[in-house]
Amino acid sequence: MADILIVNGTVVNDDREFKSDVLIQKGIITQIAPSIKPIEGIKVVDATDKLLIPGGIDTHTHFQLPFMGTVSVDDFDIGTQAAVAGGTTFIIDFVIPTKGQSLLEAYDQWRKWADEKVNCDYSLHMAVTWWSEQVSKEMEILVKERGVNSFKVFMAYKNSFMVTDEEMYHIFKRCKELGAIGQVHAENGDLVFEGQKKMLEMGINGPEGHELSRPEDLEAEATNRAITIANRVNTPVYIVHVMSIGAAEVIARHRKDGRRVYGEPIAAGLGVDGTHMWNHDWRHAAAYVMGPPIRPDPRTKEVLMDYLANGDLDCVGTDNCTFCAEQKALGKDDFTKIPNGVNGVEDRMSIVWENGVNKGKLTHSQFVRATSSEAARIFNVYPRKGRIDIGSDGDIVLWDPKASKTISKDTHHHAVDFNIFEGIKVTGIATTTIVAGNIVWNDNKLSTKKGSGTFVPRKPFGPVFNGIAQRDIVRNELLRKVDREPYTGPVIKLN
Amino acid sequence: MADILIVNGTVVNDDREFKSDVLIQKGIITQIAPSIKPIEGIKVVDATDKLLIPGGIDTHTHFQLPFMGTVSVDDFDIGTQAAVAGGTTFIIDFVIPTKGQSLLEAYDQWRKWADEKVNCDYSLHMAVTWWSEQVSKEMEILVKERGVNSFKVFMAYKNSFMVTDEEMYHIFKRCKELGAIGQVHAENGDLVFEGQKKMLEMGINGPEGHELSRPEDLEAEATNRAITIANRVNTPVYIVHVMSIGAAEVIARHRKDGRRVYGEPIAAGLGVDGTHMWNHDWRHAAAYVMGPPIRPDPRTKEVLMDYLANGDLDCVGTDNCTFCAEQKALGKDDFTKIPNGVNGVEDRMSIVWENGVNKGKLTHSQFVRATSSEAARIFNVYPRKGRIDIGSDGDIVLWDPKASKTISKDTHHHAVDFNIFEGIKVTGIATTTIVAGNIVWNDNKLSTKKGSGTFVPRKPFGPVFNGIAQRDIVRNELLRKVDREPYTGPVIKLN
Amino acid sequence: MADILIVNGTVVNDDREFKSDVLIQKGIITQIAPSIKPIEGIKVVDATDKLLIPGGIDTHTHFQLPFMGTVSVDDFDIGTQAAVAGGTTFIIDFVIPTKGQSLLEAYDQWRKWADEKVNCDYSLHMAVTWWSEQVSKEMEILVKERGVNSFKVFMAYKNSFMVTDEEMYHIFKRCKELGAIGQVHAENGDLVFEGQKKMLEMGINGPEGHELSRPEDLEAEATNRAITIANRVNTPVYIVHVMSIGAAEVIARHRKDGRRVYGEPIAAGLGVDGTHMWNHDWRHAAAYVMGPPIRPDPRTKEVLMDYLANGDLDCVGTDNCTFCAEQKALGKDDFTKIPNGVNGVEDRMSIVWENGVNKGKLTHSQFVRATSSEAARIFNVYPRKGRIDIGSDGDIVLWDPKASKTISKDTHHHAVDFNIFEGIKVTGIATTTIVAGNIVWNDNKLSTKKGSGTFVPRKPFGPVFNGIAQRDIVRNELLRKVDREPYTGPVIKLN
Amino acid sequence: MADILIVNGTVVNDDREFKSDVLIQKGIITQIAPSIKPIEGIKVVDATDKLLIPGGIDTHTHFQLPFMGTVSVDDFDIGTQAAVAGGTTFIIDFVIPTKGQSLLEAYDQWRKWADEKVNCDYSLHMAVTWWSEQVSKEMEILVKERGVNSFKVFMAYKNSFMVTDEEMYHIFKRCKELGAIGQVHAENGDLVFEGQKKMLEMGINGPEGHELSRPEDLEAEATNRAITIANRVNTPVYIVHVMSIGAAEVIARHRKDGRRVYGEPIAAGLGVDGTHMWNHDWRHAAAYVMGPPIRPDPRTKEVLMDYLANGDLDCVGTDNCTFCAEQKALGKDDFTKIPNGVNGVEDRMSIVWENGVNKGKLTHSQFVRATSSEAARIFNVYPRKGRIDIGSDGDIVLWDPKASKTISKDTHHHAVDFNIFEGIKVTGIATTTIVAGNIVWNDNKLSTKKGSGTFVPRKPFGPVFNGIAQRDIVRNELLRKVDREPYTGPVIKLN
Repeated sequence: MADILIVNGTVVNDDREFKSDVLIQKGIITQIAPSIKPIEGIKVVDATDKLLIPGGIDTHTHFQLPFMGTVSVDDFDIGTQAAVAGGTTFIIDFVIPTKGQSLLEAYDQWRKWADEKVNCDYSLHMAVTWWSEQVSKEMEILVKERGVNSFKVFMAYKNSFMVTDEEMYHIFKRCKELGAIGQVHAENGDLVFEGQKKMLEMGINGPEGHELSRPEDLEAEATNRAITIANRVNTPVYIVHVMSIGAAEVIARHRKDGRRVYGEPIAAGLGVDGTHMWNHDWRHAAAYVMGPPIRPDPRTKEVLMDYLANGDLDCVGTDNCTFCAEQKALGKDDFTKIPNGVNGVEDRMSIVWENGVNKGKLTHSQFVRATSSEAARIFNVYPRKGRIDIGSDGDIVLWDPKASKTISKDTHHHAVDFNIFEGIKVTGIATTTIVAGNIVWNDNKLSTKKGSGTFVPRKPFGPVFNGIAQRDIVRNELLRKVDREPYTGPVIKLN
Repeated sequence: MADILIVNGTVVNDDREFKSDVLIQKGIITQIAPSIKPIEGIKVVDATDKLLIPGGIDTHTHFQLPFMGTVSVDDFDIGTQAAVAGGTTFIIDFVIPTKGQSLLEAYDQWRKWADEKVNCDYSLHMAVTWWSEQVSKEMEILVKERGVNSFKVFMAYKNSFMVTDEEMYHIFKRCKELGAIGQVHAENGDLVFEGQKKMLEMGINGPEGHELSRPEDLEAEATNRAITIANRVNTPVYIVHVMSIGAAEVIARHRKDGRRVYGEPIAAGLGVDGTHMWNHDWRHAAAYVMGPPIRPDPRTKEVLMDYLANGDLDCVGTDNCTFCAEQKALGKDDFTKIPNGVNGVEDRMSIVWENGVNKGKLTHSQFVRATSSEAARIFNVYPRKGRIDIGSDGDIVLWDPKASKTISKDTHHHAVDFNIFEGIKVTGIATTTIVAGNIVWNDNKLSTKKGSGTFVPRKPFGPVFNGIAQRDIVRNELLRKVDREPYTGPVIKLN
Repeated sequence: MADILIVNGTVVNDDREFKSDVLIQKGIITQIAPSIKPIEGIKVVDATDKLLIPGGIDTHTHFQLPFMGTVSVDDFDIGTQAAVAGGTTFIIDFVIPTKGQSLLEAYDQWRKWADEKVNCDYSLHMAVTWWSEQVSKEMEILVKERGVNSFKVFMAYKNSFMVTDEEMYHIFKRCKELGAIGQVHAENGDLVFEGQKKMLEMGINGPEGHELSRPEDLEAEATNRAITIANRVNTPVYIVHVMSIGAAEVIARHRKDGRRVYGEPIAAGLGVDGTHMWNHDWRHAAAYVMGPPIRPDPRTKEVLMDYLANGDLDCVGTDNCTFCAEQKALGKDDFTKIPNGVNGVEDRMSIVWENGVNKGKLTHSQFVRATSSEAARIFNVYPRKGRIDIGSDGDIVLWDPKASKTISKDTHHHAVDFNIFEGIKVTGIATTTIVAGNIVWNDNKLSTKKGSGTFVPRKPFGPVFNGIAQRDIVRNELLRKVDREPYTGPVIKLN
Repeated sequence: MADILIVNGTVVNDDREFKSDVLIQKGIITQIAPSIKPIEGIKVVDATDKLLIPGGIDTHTHFQLPFMGTVSVDDFDIGTQAAVAGGTTFIIDFVIPTKGQSLLEAYDQWRKWADEKVNCDYSLHMAVTWWSEQVSKEMEILVKERGVNSFKVFMAYKNSFMVTDEEMYHIFKRCKELGAIGQVHAENGDLVFEGQKKMLEMGINGPEGHELSRPEDLEAEATNRAITIANRVNTPVYIVHVMSIGAAEVIARHRKDGRRVYGEPIAAGLGVDGTHMWNHDWRHAAAYVMGPPIRPDPRTKEVLMDYLANGDLDCVGTDNCTFCAEQKALGKDDFTKIPNGVNGVEDRMSIVWENGVNKGKLTHSQFVRATSSEAARIFNVYPRKGRIDIGSDGDIVLWDPKASKTISKDTHHHAVDFNIFEGIKVTGIATTTIVAGNIVWNDNKLSTKKGSGTFVPRKPFGPVFNGIAQRDIVRNELLRKVDREPYTGPVIKLN
């Protein structure tokens, strides 16, 4: 929790940009003004020709996740090192209990894993993989006492995480009572299951079978269904990893009708396309396997970025969940056994800049909105996170829009032995990352301290609930019983 | 199977209209020419100022259906009397076995009920309300030996007719193998169920609760899901009773993407709106209860007609399933117990003319397409039915575009004591209806003969399957296994 | 006007296909039945494994057109030879008077050119390139006495053919009075003009400048404007050469709202994409220059075919207007001087089959609708043309869906020295073409007779006007003056 | 320029809301903190249960406008009194030179009119009603020396303000060079002209003829055309008074494609519908005449609000341009002579709150975005205006979400004798309005000082130009000349 003075930079918030110095004291931003005089002894950082942006927020990571028989290799230490090296200073990971497991027990496990290791602040979403009275009660404890305000359900992974429509309805109702946002992995799990069987029967057992068994129709369908269910409950819903044009269109359409739905594209979907799964090198192809699949349609990443620019999608996550070759190899003879997951937490910011700002699609402020501010609002940590403002956390990135690098597994800070963005040159990178007033990344060097990050509890009834109560009132006005004389005529007798 | 000569009329088919005489011999059309000389003794009908149109086809009736504890009052006799009085000469009814019941057994029951009574030709769809090896086998027999080429599933009526997505997928696969078209009652049954509980909990137990518990979202969602599932199978699908703008848009969207989907609006949806369910007279309100609900949005009937005109919807049915006051009264204290169903088979043609042709939305030929030709093609009885052509059945209607009537329960030919179109004045009516060369309706009088109609078996692999095999080939070209060297690197050991 | 009996074929009309023999006598179809006994001496053609389809209709040709200082090389002789070699037996060419020229004078010129040379029947559209009382009167004569029922305006070609919005409004009004359909070349001519200047200023003077100066936005905009204007008049409008996804979407959207608009994709747009204009060989690139441009977006041809399949577009023309290298070379230093035009009349049918039927997008019947029936209806020569029916002209094509050929300038029957479809292999070709009962193309050999075709006059108020009068009635009901007391208060005095 | 301390309020900005006190010193906000200790003698205002929102910005007024032979009655004094009484503290009016008039001369005239009278700050847009070298030069002076960064063109008012597409293209190019935003009154002026003639010919000379002669099609068409033209120039464009669902859809569609277009609904369009023009009282009907017309479709105001909520439309103006009965009466026998214009500046904020926030469509922050923040950004006066932040102008409104009033001409602060919102009850009103630290409206009383407001010059190249240069780069990359060998073959000789 240090002091630091950043001078000569251009502050970019999501509403505007302006030249200014920024002072951080005890980890908190205390002054934003044109020419701040340095207090004696304070560290001064020169940001000439740099943009000062709020530290990035990755809304979707899976560090050291036990999954499909193995554990993702980016743990909370390495994962958050990679994060800050790319300009991200806050991550939200998912607790994923198994069916039947206590949510609290799982939560405690994740807290323990993370608290010992994180190099920046973090927070936790909770997956709800089953439904019962106990689950309902534990959700309340998580919201009221454990700082969780977001719960995810899976519509895919049949026979494992998948919940039914009926369960989803009840989980959303519970979310609403508690002021938490529902999150959805949206794919039609029944059709995925049938598709996988079909591909294997046809002898298509390689990574290309992954996409072929779960094309974008299935994602679009489930997205539509999830929004419909959430809308019946009148509660906000957040679609994690929007991977396809079809799903994005569904979201945009519902938003136009006033539905409270949020969409999260991820770095992988914005940066590459799914044709890699057809690569002739199995290991290469397998590296791109995640669910929902990265789509082979080459327009996808352009269109998702257009939607992000237009506000039809909201904030960018990564679903960072990395597995090395020997782990991916569990599915070498059967794509359904390839551990699902890709990297992203390090490269997210630069990928969005390259394909958004450099393509003329995003303004600087829209970049900030998409990489931090909107996430902070949705998950209710704004303006503590997601804004350079007095009183906000001293998580700031010096962004050099002219500096370039070529992404590679040889230079990245992940534990994984592959990078899905290998060889992509990005212009626009984080040259210095400041966490709570401390420089943790500078001049291509990390200076993080393991376990120095803290858990950020998130309160319920955040901005996503604004107006929801009013909507209930408006709706209930339509749910009026008609006042009638009772029917007094004959009634047929049933046998 | 009589002879008749119709002179001085204007023949309207779905591709054009032209002045011509028409000769029917032994129930079959044998000549279409400008000035046919009457064979001695033949009955001659003058059609000056009349249009000659193919007898209407009602794709969707439920005569004498045992449902919700009672039986619909229009039986196959009265129902087909009402049909011909309105210009409809062919109806397709639904066999609906209960869960677990043999499809063949149910089929035999329906055949028996119908054969004894029908006053015009008819055919049968089969509902599939459960799934098993036996069902699969019986479907084959029905297609190959019983003249059934269409099978309907219900996505609503939870705990009764409703099937799961997985079952629907398997039923559609079976349909495809057999060359039969899948039909769907599309509403999200889980949400209907929850909605009904909610309304009753709120004390909304009247007919208005029917629509409030299952708004159009739920229909649009299910429609989208059904099409997605059918598309995965690559088999044609037919959405029965498209009742909402939302569902119609879903269909139109999928068609634009080349999906083989057909949509059936019904007379009720094209002729009235659902605000009647808010009527202060319970009996009146209850009369409009059917599922999916007739929508209260007053634009609905306009928009459905626009879609029909544009070819985004295909053919018009009725879901004719009538219950008298004392039957509807089963739900006098609980709308979920009101037997679902409305009239339509008599007034369908005039309603479509009034709201289609008279509104400038439909041309004469589009009227014919929507009321008979397209239905005949979809269900594979074209051009025997649905066209005035040499060799076609002698089912012809003399349509007077200038004649008017006001619809009323007091003058209709139904058994039911209510008419949902009460008081609507239509200009454009069937003045004479000819079935197999016999005049069965003329000068406002019926002269039908009970049981004179015959069952029309329908062959599989009709026009709706045209090109489907080619699509399979095209798709399978994309389902190609990538030829790769096997992965030979290390594989992690699982515990 | 010969006799011929075709046996063992499968007749494909746009409403169905069926096995049948077909008898043509004196050039007219007189019998369609399963096993017609050959009259002695009649020529019998075996059509085993062949489809019998109505002779193709090319709605859009420019044979021997004087244009941009030169004349297109396919004259009415060679052009119609190419037509029948590809299965097209009826073409509609455009009379294009210069600004100020008498329409009748131009019409006479074209008739003379054509009558002497055509090898099959033909008809004429009239371009209206200026507006005056004289033009208005001549339009009437053309409709009532010269067999013209379609008039085209240009929204592009500023300072030459282009008309203003105001002129277009008056021309459409006149069309409506006369019962003729308005046709539109839809591109924003002002923006094309500015775009051309800009490209040349930037030094982009090659064929790629053609598309860059008039991208699809300009086509979509003008299409929308033309439909809006026609709709104000309440008269049918036909968009010639729909070249872009954007324009097709505009048409589809307006149709959904019930607007009477028709869209004509062309062989070039359905068969190739515009990236050829970027070819490094100037002559190759220049060969693809036509207006509106063939679009470089590779999805275009797929999407246009989807729209055609779905009925959002109607019938396929070609804009066949061919220029040899030395003619195209007029623009060797300035793309705006390259004579606009491509081939298509010979390959149209096979291109539509290959990219439509073989891709699973079109059924056989939809193929017929798109290549002849719908055109015949729109331009009011149905069912004389566009259908195999008793009384129709004996213009029939034996189509072999299994036979293949590779398109090439070396083997085509055009006068032009280039073929834009060079090297494309099509499976599905016309093996025999019969015009008025005469075999004019068989076994890869032509046996046409120059001048043997006849001009087909087309009557006004064809099917495209069906219901238009009713729409006027419905609209006028909304144009009602409000009955009010006159305002009697004070009125300010103006200076 | 006074000091004031506001305590116990809830600050609402467009990114969040929070409880805080706010200190204004010398007219500028200097402190925002939970419990600010009052400096001695400072005026303290208690805002318990009130929201503190940035003073409203009305982007579109016409005070004392000479128009159609008369002058609008709300002058800059009365107009700005009405503004502050409704919670608006900044207005942007339009200078409208006549065709041929010097823009600078007109500007000087407007400044003189305004500077003497305004009761709050204001700024000026400039209409460009003709095009010449002089206009081009004066635009530069206006931007560089007179504080104008927005220029409006009219696509309607044929023979008066209307410009051609070609002129619009050149004006937009000039705007781009200067860093000014183009604004458009979007209606197809040719069709309006023809429509007016038609109505008068039909004898429809009352106010209903106004809408009937220029239905929403014409607005949607022109909107599409304007955006297309602006996009060709790659410059931002702002559609003033978006009055119809059709036009709003056009804007939304183009935004989805990444076009830089902004849409301004107005209070009239969000608050009432156009059926009033059919009112049987002429004076009442005439009061609603403005262009483009307020639409009779009752869904319009709902849908425009949905679009505003979703960010497809941006900020709310009024087009306040009021005429008394005796002025409107100029058109008593001919609707085309009714001075166009309605009120709005006073009621705008409450109308948006009532139909937006109270209907559950807008959150508090979205309300602020729509009523001030977004306007401030678009016209480049943010965050001086449009935000409660340190350094911003002390223009703050105390908003009472529980307080109600019924709008009426009897109580409003306009000079006009009619209020289009007469009788509408709004809950949510400005109870206190502070301009530059002075209370000018409180307890239903005005305490403004005529001429106390100041002109706010606006700089060019504001946020709407962010990323435009990058887009030019990206586009220019596509505008690449193909490097080719020159064509050396033969070239035809022209005569």
